[in-house]
Amino acid sequence: MTQENTTRHVLINGQWRPANHQSTFSPVDPTNNQTIPLSFPVSDWSDCDEALDAASQASREMQSIPSARIADFLERYADKIDGAKDSLVEAAFLETGLAKSPRLADVELPRTSNQLRAAAEACRTGSWALPTIDQKAGIRSCYEAIGPVCVFGPNNFPFAFGSVSGGDFAAAIAAGNPVIGKANSSHPETTRRFAELALAAAEETDMPRAIVQLVYRTSHADGETLVSDPRLGATGYTGSRHAGLALKAAADAAGKPIYLELSSVNPVVITPAALNQRGSEITDEFITSVLMGTGQFCTNPGLVLLIDDPQSQAFIESVKDRFAATKPGTLLSPAVAKNLSKSVQQLCDFGADLVVGGGEPETDRCAVANTLLTTTGRSFLENPEGFQTEAFGNASLIVVAKEINELCDVIRKLEGNLTGCLYSAVDADDEESCKKISLELAPKVGRLLNDKMPTGVAVSSAMNHGGPFPATGHPGFTAVGVPGSLLRFAKLTSYDNVRPSRLPELLQDPNPLAAWRLVDGNWTKDSTT
Amino acid sequence: MTQENTTRHVLINGQWRPANHQSTFSPVDPTNNQTIPLSFPVSDWSDCDEALDAASQASREMQSIPSARIADFLERYADKIDGAKDSLVEAAFLETGLAKSPRLADVELPRTSNQLRAAAEACRTGSWALPTIDQKAGIRSCYEAIGPVCVFGPNNFPFAFGSVSGGDFAAAIAAGNPVIGKANSSHPETTRRFAELALAAAEETDMPRAIVQLVYRTSHADGETLVSDPRLGATGYTGSRHAGLALKAAADAAGKPIYLELSSVNPVVITPAALNQRGSEITDEFITSVLMGTGQFCTNPGLVLLIDDPQSQAFIESVKDRFAATKPGTLLSPAVAKNLSKSVQQLCDFGADLVVGGGEPETDRCAVANTLLTTTGRSFLENPEGFQTEAFGNASLIVVAKEINELCDVIRKLEGNLTGCLYSAVDADDEESCKKISLELAPKVGRLLNDKMPTGVAVSSAMNHGGPFPATGHPGFTAVGVPGSLLRFAKLTSYDNVRPSRLPELLQDPNPLAAWRLVDGNWTKDSTT
Repeated sequence: MTQENTTRHVLINGQWRPANHQSTFSPVDPTNNQTIPLSFPVSDWSDCDEALDAASQASREMQSIPSARIADFLERYADKIDGAKDSLVEAAFLETGLAKSPRLADVELPRTSNQLRAAAEACRTGSWALPTIDQKAGIRSCYEAIGPVCVFGPNNFPFAFGSVSGGDFAAAIAAGNPVIGKANSSHPETTRRFAELALAAAEETDMPRAIVQLVYRTSHADGETLVSDPRLGATGYTGSRHAGLALKAAADAAGKPIYLELSSVNPVVITPAALNQRGSEITDEFITSVLMGTGQFCTNPGLVLLIDDPQSQAFIESVKDRFAATKPGTLLSPAVAKNLSKSVQQLCDFGADLVVGGGEPETDRCAVANTLLTTTGRSFLENPEGFQTEAFGNASLIVVAKEINELCDVIRKLEGNLTGCLYSAVDADDEESCKKISLELAPKVGRLLNDKMPTGVAVSSAMNHGGPFPATGHPGFTAVGVPGSLLRFAKLTSYDNVRPSRLPELLQDPNPLAAWRLVDGNWTKDSTT
Repeated sequence: MTQENTTRHVLINGQWRPANHQSTFSPVDPTNNQTIPLSFPVSDWSDCDEALDAASQASREMQSIPSARIADFLERYADKIDGAKDSLVEAAFLETGLAKSPRLADVELPRTSNQLRAAAEACRTGSWALPTIDQKAGIRSCYEAIGPVCVFGPNNFPFAFGSVSGGDFAAAIAAGNPVIGKANSSHPETTRRFAELALAAAEETDMPRAIVQLVYRTSHADGETLVSDPRLGATGYTGSRHAGLALKAAADAAGKPIYLELSSVNPVVITPAALNQRGSEITDEFITSVLMGTGQFCTNPGLVLLIDDPQSQAFIESVKDRFAATKPGTLLSPAVAKNLSKSVQQLCDFGADLVVGGGEPETDRCAVANTLLTTTGRSFLENPEGFQTEAFGNASLIVVAKEINELCDVIRKLEGNLTGCLYSAVDADDEESCKKISLELAPKVGRLLNDKMPTGVAVSSAMNHGGPFPATGHPGFTAVGVPGSLLRFAKLTSYDNVRPSRLPELLQDPNPLAAWRLVDGNWTKDSTT
C-alpha cells in the first residue's frame, strides 16, 4: 500500500505517521472543479497535543544550538526547494490553478528559497535581535526565541507564505523556534511535499526532530486550543478575517502573541492631474495589478479613490472595456469564487453600481467575471463599513469623490490597510492636496506608496507588510522583510549583572559573530571589554 | 469659591473644567486611615468622548511638529517637576504614605524628571524609531506615532509611573502622541498637580492644547469603551490583574494595542553554596529588597526557591527573626492592606506554612505584619497556580525543593514574570546546576539577574521591564528604558517609492538629526545620496 492510495500521514516529532482522526478531506482542482484523488486527515486534539510536547522539547534543544547551525538548516532546505522545483510547481498548479510560469516556477519559488536564505543570513549574525549593551549599568539585552510557533498559511501563496516554507516559517526558525505547520486546506499536498524536504534538511543538519511538524486540518475548537496552549510561544496566521478573529480571541485571552494578516482593500488615490498627465500608463498599471494572479493578492488594489472629473470618467470607461475584453483568470478554490460573487453582490446591495462583471461563478472552473464597481464619496460616507467589504479576487470598487475634502473624509473613514497609494502628477501645482492626502492616508496603512501599485512586496529590510487592524492584529510588526519579521517570534530578555560565561554568545564581550550591537547608545560591530 | 472646597476639575482639551459626573470619591491617608478632604469626580462617558476628540486633533497636529520641539516640551516639563519638588512630595506623601525622603524626594522624583529628559533626547535624534533605508529597492521605513495614548498609572509609583508623568507618559509623548491620563484613584491630587505642570510646559512650548489631558476615574464599562475606541492609538496600563484583563479583553477585541503590567512574583533562586559562602550578606539583601517601600514594587521578590539543606533552614530562621523584629511599613491604601491579608490567607489555605506575620491589617493605619511563608517543592507542584498567588506588599513565600531537579520542575511550572534571579557561589563547582537553572528560568522572565535582588529598575537602554504573560500582555516590549519603551506607542510605516520631499525628515537623504539609521544592512549616522 503506497501513500498515494491512502490517507496522507501527518509529520509529528520527526515521524510521518497516520493521523489520529475521525474524518478526511480532499482538495479540488480549481481549473476544472474536480476533486483531487488524495485524502487528508482532520487531526484530533491528540495529534496537536503530541506535536506541542515534541515542539517544547525541540524548543529547549534549540536554545543550545549555535545560530550558525540553524542557518545551515535553512540554507540546506532552500537548496532542496530549488532542486525540487518541478514537482513542487506541478503539485501547486494542480491544487491552486496558479500559472506554472512565470508565477509559480519563476517568481514565487525563487522568492521562497531566497527568503529562507535571507532569514539564514540574519540568523547567522544575530543583528536582527537588536543586542544592546549598557556597560555602565551592567545590563545587556536582546531578543530571543519565544518558543514553538504555530503557522497557519494562506491559500494564495502556496510557497512564499506556505506554513512550512514561507515567511512566517523562515522568521520563526531563524529566531530559534520550532514550527508546527497547519497546512492550508486548499493545497495540502503541496505543503506536505515541503515538509518532506524540510525534514530531510533537518536530518542532514542534525536539527531537533520536531523542528518542523505538520498537520493538515483540525476542528475550529482544537485550533483555538492550539494557539492558546501554554506550551506554545506564538502564532502566525494569514487568512480569512472570520477564522483569524476566532483564533485571535483565543490567543489573546491566554496572553499568547498571535500575528495575523486578515484583510485589506488597499486604497489607491489617483488625482485628476495624474490621469491627465499619464492616464493610459496608470490604467495599464492598475489593470495589471488588479488582474494579476486573478487579483488574489493581500495587496490587491480593491478600492480606488478618484475626484469627479472627466479624466476620472475616462479612466473608469477604459478599465471597464479592458475588464470586459479580458478572460477572467482561475480562482484558487470554489470557496474563493463563491465568496467573490457574494461580496460583489453585497457591495451592489449597499448601493454600488456594477459597471462590469459580477454574477455567479462559472460552473466548470473556479472563475468570476472581472468586476468593476463604482460609488460616490457621499454614498461611501453613508456606509463606510459596508463599502469596505473585501471582494477578494479580480474585482475593484472605485469611489468618486466630489472634491478633495470629500476624498479626505473617505480616507478618514478607512479601516487599517496593508497599503495605500497616491498617484499624482509630476511637477504639478497640486502638491498641497497631495500632502493633505498623505497626512490622512499614512496613519491608516502599513506601507505608503507613490506612483506605484501595491502588488509586489519586496523582501526588503525596509518592507512593512503589516498595518493597523484589521489589516493585521498589531501595527508594529511586519510579516515580510528581514530582519523585521523575525521580531514577531521573539521575546525580549535583559541580562542584569549576569556572569559573563552565562551570557548568550551575542551579548558576550568578544562579539565573534560581528553582530551589530547598540553599545552605550551607539551601533557598532566592535567587541566590548 | 476655590477648587479646594469643591470637586476637582478634569483637564480636557487644554481647559480645567468641571467634570460631567454623577458621583465623586476621595483618597485616604494610609498613615491614619483618614479620608482626605478633597473630592474627585467619576467622569461620565462624555468627558472621555470629548478627550478623545481633542486627542485626535492633537495627534494630527503633532504629525507636523518637529521632534525637537516635542523634546523641548518634555524637558520644560522635567524642569517644572524639579522646581515643584516640595509640593509634589507633600501631596504624594499624604496620599501614599511613601517616605518623603529618600524615597519620594531623592529617588523617585529625580528618576521621573530624568526619565522625561531621556525620552526627550531619544525624541530629538529619532534613532529610537529604527529608521531603515533600502536604497536598491527604494523603500524606507521607520516607527511613527500610533495615535492618542491612554495611560492608567499604578498606585505604587505616584511619580515615576504616574499617568501624566511616568514612563508610559514619557514614551508616548516622545513617540509623538498626545496622552489621556487616567489618574490612579489612590493619588488623584498628586496626579492633578503633575497635569498642571505639564499643561504649563505645553503652553510655554506651544504644543497642541490636548497633548495632555486628565480624568480621575470612570466606570469600568467606560474604561473598556475608552481603550477600544477607534480614535485611540494604544493604551498603557499598570495595575491589578483583574482590572487589567478586563481592559485587555476590550482592547484586543477592537484590535487596539494595549501594554499591560499585571502581576509578578519574581522568583529568586538561592543555591546552598551561595548561602554557605555569603549567607548573611544575601539575607541582608533579601530583607532590604522585600521590605523596601513595604514590598510594593512590581519586582518585589515574592517567591524564593531554595534547596532543602541546613543553610537554607538557617536563611529561613534568620529572615523570620528579622521580619518579626522590624516594624512593618505603611501600605499604599486600605485596599492594598486588605488584599495582602487576603492573599496571605489564601496561600495558607493552599497549605503554605505561616512562619511569621499574616493576620488582619492594623486598624489605625494601612499595615500588615511582615510576612514569611514556606512550602515544599512537592506541595508547590501539586498546586502551582495557587502558590503563585501574588501577595503584593511586605510578604514572601519560600519554596524548599528536595533537590535541583525538583527545583527545576518548580521553575517549569512558573507563569511569566518580570524578573528571575539566581544567587550562586563564586568559583563553586555547581556551575552545571546553575546553567540548568538559567536555561529553565530565562524563558519565564523578562529580566534575568545574577547575585542581585530584582528591585531597582534602571532606566537603561538594555533594561527590560516586561516579560511573558501574565507579567505583561506581550513579551516583546519593555515599559522602562529608552529607546525600547517608545516602540510600544508606535506603528511601523514603510515608504515605498515615496517622493523625497514627502518623506519624513528622519528618512530623507540628508539626515540632519544625525539619527542612527540602518542603511542597506549597516547602521550609520551618515546621510544617503
